[in-house]
Amino acid sequence: MRGFLIIGNKAFTKPFRLNDLPGAGRIDILCRCVAQSLFISHGIRKDVEVYLLLLGEPDPPKAIKIVGKTVKRMSPDERNIAGHLRKALGVKVNKNWKEVSSGVYVARKCLKDLLEELSAYYEIYYLREDGKDIRDLAKEMENPLFVLGDHIGVKKEDEEIVISYAREIISVSKLSLQADQCIVIVHYELDRLQI
Amino acid sequence: MRGFLIIGNKAFTKPFRLNDLPGAGRIDILCRCVAQSLFISHGIRKDVEVYLLLLGEPDPPKAIKIVGKTVKRMSPDERNIAGHLRKALGVKVNKNWKEVSSGVYVARKCLKDLLEELSAYYEIYYLREDGKDIRDLAKEMENPLFVLGDHIGVKKEDEEIVISYAREIISVSKLSLQADQCIVIVHYELDRLQI
Repeated sequence: MRGFLIIGNKAFTKPFRLNDLPGAGRIDILCRCVAQSLFISHGIRKDVEVYLLLLGEPDPPKAIKIVGKTVKRMSPDERNIAGHLRKALGVKVNKNWKEVSSGVYVARKCLKDLLEELSAYYEIYYLREDGKDIRDLAKEMENPLFVLGDHIGVKKEDEEIVISYAREIISVSKLSLQADQCIVIVHYELDRLQI
Repeated sequence: MRGFLIIGNKAFTKPFRLNDLPGAGRIDILCRCVAQSLFISHGIRKDVEVYLLLLGEPDPPKAIKIVGKTVKRMSPDERNIAGHLRKALGVKVNKNWKEVSSGVYVARKCLKDLLEELSAYYEIYYLREDGKDIRDLAKEMENPLFVLGDHIGVKKEDEEIVISYAREIISVSKLSLQADQCIVIVHYELDRLQI
């Protein structure tokens, strides 16, 4: 399994307008991260789970989980994925995952709760520009889950939590890339070792 | 310089609805290719040019050029990029590039005309799954331009034209990836050699 957790610092936690995804706390970034985590050409990576942590107004925190093995009727364009997220944000939440549509879940979870849950079955890696080169570490990874920030990055207090759960801080480029680009590179380096 | 040429086999050649980019001959794919070619976190790659060849109805072929050095008011979300393309498709075209907005050009060009023009200052590489591993060839590349197909790939007759101009056929993965993912990997391998 491979997992990705993307932190949307300002991502709206209520249904938003599909015609202005950047204006919804940069939901567009989260959509692209979902697409790059799950999709290959004409198919979905069945062995991937994506977790989004939405911390924007008016009702944070909310977490959304998308499971490659069971997700249906999702396509890689931003608007389609945004439609799934929008639907999940319209549902009443509690601490337990609630399935909104096939393979898409929503819950009330903070970063610490989420990482506590995920670290039971994933090795947590934190992606940051100054980390160790993924190319040196990829071969040691088993069931890795990668934590990434959005355009704002990861706030200091959140970073402390992530690091407390992380096996390593890793880097995919000396350039500052967009989160979805980092996800493509992570897949690429891991794929090269497996196929 | 780095260049990318993406062939949109069915991409509409007239202004389309921004609310249905997949329905416009998969303009969404072209938008993601533009985004991944040009954008890094909080910035644009000034040394990149993107060329789109649109072959869909009702008025093919049309080519759009986007120049990283001069493009303005573009952001990486699909809808924003689609707005730029839409504007370009509303302009009367002839064989010469016409600047529609800063850094965005449109012209009536077929694949052969476009490659003839581009091969004067770029080394052409054709991206195909069964090509040579980019990791072995990246260090030899100078001013490379990469030709990619959309979800349909590159039609046989077009492929013959591309290969006649190509220095090599290269591959970025044994998996069949989406065109925009291939672009991220190309940048990644070239970046690693330069920074």
